Amino acid sequence: MTREPAATQSTALLTDQYELTMVQAALASGAAERRCVFEVFTRHLPAGRRYGVVAGTGRLLEGLEQFQFGAAEIDWLAEQGIVDEPTLDFLADYRFRGDIHGYAEGEVFMPDSPVLRVESSFAEACLLETFVLSVLNHDSAIASAASRMSLAAGARPCVEMGSRRTQELSAVASARAAAVAGFTATSNLEAGRRWGLPTIGTAAHAFTLLHDSEEEAFEAQVKAFGPGTTLLVDTYDVPTAVRRAVEIAGEELGAVRLDSGDLVEQAREVRALLDSLGNTGTRIIVSSDLDEHAIARLQAAPVDSYGVGTKLVTGGGSPTAAMVYKLVARTDDDGDSVSVAKKAEGKKSVGGVKHPVRSFDAGGRAEAELIGIGTAPEAHGARTRELIVPMVLGGEVQSQHLGAEGVRRAAQRHTDSLAELPAAAKRLQHGDPVLPTIFS
Amino acid sequence: MTREPAATQSTALLTDQYELTMVQAALASGAAERRCVFEVFTRHLPAGRRYGVVAGTGRLLEGLEQFQFGAAEIDWLAEQGIVDEPTLDFLADYRFRGDIHGYAEGEVFMPDSPVLRVESSFAEACLLETFVLSVLNHDSAIASAASRMSLAAGARPCVEMGSRRTQELSAVASARAAAVAGFTATSNLEAGRRWGLPTIGTAAHAFTLLHDSEEEAFEAQVKAFGPGTTLLVDTYDVPTAVRRAVEIAGEELGAVRLDSGDLVEQAREVRALLDSLGNTGTRIIVSSDLDEHAIARLQAAPVDSYGVGTKLVTGGGSPTAAMVYKLVARTDDDGDSVSVAKKAEGKKSVGGVKHPVRSFDAGGRAEAELIGIGTAPEAHGARTRELIVPMVLGGEVQSQHLGAEGVRRAAQRHTDSLAELPAAAKRLQHGDPVLPTIFS
Repeated sequence: MTREPAATQSTALLTDQYELTMVQAALASGAAERRCVFEVFTRHLPAGRRYGVVAGTGRLLEGLEQFQFGAAEIDWLAEQGIVDEPTLDFLADYRFRGDIHGYAEGEVFMPDSPVLRVESSFAEACLLETFVLSVLNHDSAIASAASRMSLAAGARPCVEMGSRRTQELSAVASARAAAVAGFTATSNLEAGRRWGLPTIGTAAHAFTLLHDSEEEAFEAQVKAFGPGTTLLVDTYDVPTAVRRAVEIAGEELGAVRLDSGDLVEQAREVRALLDSLGNTGTRIIVSSDLDEHAIARLQAAPVDSYGVGTKLVTGGGSPTAAMVYKLVARTDDDGDSVSVAKKAEGKKSVGGVKHPVRSFDAGGRAEAELIGIGTAPEAHGARTRELIVPMVLGGEVQSQHLGAEGVRRAAQRHTDSLAELPAAAKRLQHGDPVLPTIFS
Repeated sequence: MTREPAATQSTALLTDQYELTMVQAALASGAAERRCVFEVFTRHLPAGRRYGVVAGTGRLLEGLEQFQFGAAEIDWLAEQGIVDEPTLDFLADYRFRGDIHGYAEGEVFMPDSPVLRVESSFAEACLLETFVLSVLNHDSAIASAASRMSLAAGARPCVEMGSRRTQELSAVASARAAAVAGFTATSNLEAGRRWGLPTIGTAAHAFTLLHDSEEEAFEAQVKAFGPGTTLLVDTYDVPTAVRRAVEIAGEELGAVRLDSGDLVEQAREVRALLDSLGNTGTRIIVSSDLDEHAIARLQAAPVDSYGVGTKLVTGGGSPTAAMVYKLVARTDDDGDSVSVAKKAEGKKSVGGVKHPVRSFDAGGRAEAELIGIGTAPEAHGARTRELIVPMVLGGEVQSQHLGAEGVRRAAQRHTDSLAELPAAAKRLQHGDPVLPTIFS
């Protein structure tokens, strides 16, 4: 079994207090039962980025199943006097019973793309705001960075190894988000356990320093894992280490890893040395603060795979996707739907339920994000593709989004979605979003 | 009770696979039992920062108590074939039985400050690397940013409200780290539950939009929470909303919140309007992408408190503290201690166990971080202060670091530590670390 229950603990307090106080006030005013539509979108991509990648949907739905106020949560809220008795009663019975639709996980998004739509009573939908945003903002930021790195690496595999540079559970989520956006493995064991991701790892400099000599360390590692292991060769002198590694592991030596210094230059020297020793099949793995630009530079060097850490888990300079969760429509006392939006200066948004499609030119290339307000958008281009899929219907989570299957589907969706984009999407330089967002 | 057990789940798989494979190879080579000293430090502060703040120590020690491989973890490792049977046996029995010392949580640090020292067998200490770094790198990054914001805000309270812009459990850790560095409250309920932090929150724009008019929304909120509540006044027209708020809540209106637009200008207008209506006691709370620089600008405006979100939880542009966990000494076969360090180009470090003290001038002002290697550093300045305190002794976690008490002590330590620094520490402009780090 690859999917461990994400948490036996409630996720319901992973939220801002005002979600609960709004519920209390709305229960008191009678507005809590109004049917509402909330939408998640970002007003802008991080500076210079061509596209964003939706990620976290599967984690969100897994967490939604635990979004319930148990006795421990209710007791604490009561002790603290955060909400009143009627609200505590409401929370104790709370389960989300509405509908959630959205962009499939792995899908590319643009500014204003309505990536998630939550429909339910105000009280039910309001409570989810913080949790929904925390998951999507983090995971989408990581996947958006990972996608650029994967693109830069081309056919060479990227491996996620950033756990130490982000919070311990963000690390688990980051490994998953990287897998959505093309990474082939992770060093994070918990992510491997939860979603069946391939995991890898061999040794650090400390392992070499632990032994009386590099030779002893290499011998110990080869004895434990066989000659196919990866030896870290930059603790003392790189060429000496490479010769030693080949002497000890022979021509079956799996790989050597370089984790510091000038990687382009070293990779060339190490490749030449390995080849001269007959180890043409031994791979070279590099790591050390890589981002998409460093990877692009290394493409000219004889490198076989990239270990990516800090720059991945910090979102490549943009650690949050800046998504917001906005009420766009609600019923009135007659049960009619009313579009709503904030009007004061700054942070304005567009009221009304959005219907997004992606339009394509005759050659099958994506050309615009078309967003209808209240109805389907006007036709445009040679063909269009629907972007919204069901995720929760009447409170029932659609299981294909969950667990290892969810990650596999998301990775496939990402590959397919990226393949449709214009060539400019692959440029690493700063530029505008690759598709215009057109409201109609 | 303010402290909920942080997790009934094991934290032992929140790690990189190589920690486990190194243990396997070291068990096989016989080096696993060598006594080792690992140190945590950063080679540099984020660009332009004057100091860093140690945070996460309490969380680390809380997580250490759950760092055990239960049947579920062992079974999964066995199924995946990640390590061999002798290693599984070792892991099943694993408990950290060594010593951990370090800078007290809340303490200020400089480049190369040895903020944590882990002493045990290689196998025991190696296993903790990823978890230790994940916790300290995240929480210290957040606290380091929070400290600058608190400084900029002076006597005005800063409230943490960034949960939605970071991963859902990073949000909980961020709220705690902000409390260590001077924030007075958080919107995050789980952080309130775990560590007894004061929590706050009232309403979002959605609550106003839910109702047929702003008036109805304000009435509902005042009815639910009394006139002392905080009303959000920037959904439609700010001056109209302020007048309405005063009409509905009267002169006891607690506060109004501004969350968009030109905050300096609006705060002045709103203050004048409130005063003209007789509401001289009604406070003004501002939020909207605030960082230390925005707060500094707002100090000239009549603002009573700051709500800080995105810029806090993303570390004010530096989302990781870049700390590393390095083997600096180990025993040899004779049981003698040997200093060790990586030698190849890049990422070099200084071998040997470090003894840090902070030195002060005759006026009581801190003037340097003195680090002795192997022994206490040479005397320097009018007096010195020891920086290292015990955290775990023979596997026993020292309980004063845990839970709500740990956070309170850390916040006090931070206040005291900051008060000792030269005035330059308080400058927001880019500059060098405020204390030189001197090895001797």
